[in-house]
Amino acid sequence: MDERLKQQLEFALEIDKEKNIFRQTHLSGHGRNENDAEHAWHMAIMAYVLREYANEPVDIARVMLMCLIHDIVEIDAGDTYAYDAEGLKTQKARENAAKERIFSLLPDEQKQELMQLFDEFEEFATPESKFAHAMDNLQPLLLNNSNGGGDWKEHDVSAEQVYGRQRKTRLGSERLYEETDRILQENIRKGSLKK
Amino acid sequence: MDERLKQQLEFALEIDKEKNIFRQTHLSGHGRNENDAEHAWHMAIMAYVLREYANEPVDIARVMLMCLIHDIVEIDAGDTYAYDAEGLKTQKARENAAKERIFSLLPDEQKQELMQLFDEFEEFATPESKFAHAMDNLQPLLLNNSNGGGDWKEHDVSAEQVYGRQRKTRLGSERLYEETDRILQENIRKGSLKK
Repeated sequence: MDERLKQQLEFALEIDKEKNIFRQTHLSGHGRNENDAEHAWHMAIMAYVLREYANEPVDIARVMLMCLIHDIVEIDAGDTYAYDAEGLKTQKARENAAKERIFSLLPDEQKQELMQLFDEFEEFATPESKFAHAMDNLQPLLLNNSNGGGDWKEHDVSAEQVYGRQRKTRLGSERLYEETDRILQENIRKGSLKK
Repeated sequence: MDERLKQQLEFALEIDKEKNIFRQTHLSGHGRNENDAEHAWHMAIMAYVLREYANEPVDIARVMLMCLIHDIVEIDAGDTYAYDAEGLKTQKARENAAKERIFSLLPDEQKQELMQLFDEFEEFATPESKFAHAMDNLQPLLLNNSNGGGDWKEHDVSAEQVYGRQRKTRLGSERLYEETDRILQENIRKGSLKK
């Protein structure tokens, strides 16, 4: 087998490990914890179906690919819960080392391309990145809302903390932020999310 | 909330159930069974990374979306193992009913669009469909090969049966079929796949 294809297939096999990285979100129907690969799959389809709500025109293929790869670094770095203040302090360094190791399995120009796409997501500056982040927020919100806000209760998270994160959805989609706000207000009213 | 967004979010929540549909393939490292959402995520990234090997030029965004949604019908119809002769007889009818129910959650023009994409995958006629099928074959092959062919042994599958399915990879990618053949021959030689 030629070296190039060998590298590509090694990368393909390596990312299989993302299916073992579990998140704090639970599947709908009060299911088990969700893993990163499932989360990314769900985000990518949601991005396609909801693309009309992006604030600015987006290259939807780029958004989808960004969604699919945005958590690959967690294979080494693990999942850092959005409301884990301690974990968040070291997250960047852990994820940078992982990014270098994992994307280096690919032929060099593909390594560069996917690392750039990963960085674009992280930098939160382009329309594509902002819309992908809106999906990163909305996808677990839909699941958690369907489960009566169980994930917030489990971690004793406050509305202020949740808004701190979810407000950024507005940068990608005003319309989806309106809906996010509606869902959060409903959960506060029902006592599923503490004020 | 307007009716259109409500329908789109209901669809988004419904497809969460695909994460509960488990396949016969096991994750690398002799892991647990893989589910459909993980499989679809993996296929979509592989399609992007390996797109240079498609026999004909492909619209890679279309291939990726096809990979992402191709198993949604299994939410109702369940997974049918590629070498389950009995299950294969009723698969089409079960999947057609599921397709109608699940995509009907969406606004009508999105329902039509995604059903057409789903049908395109099934019909195996376009370059995009053929390449997506190559991923549908290669992804579990990589995992099973990494696990010493355990899935074939568990189901007492013969090389002839495996070739019957994997040969179709050639229609999407001659180069990836060469590699498939190399992997299968190696597994036959090692006794992991019976002649």
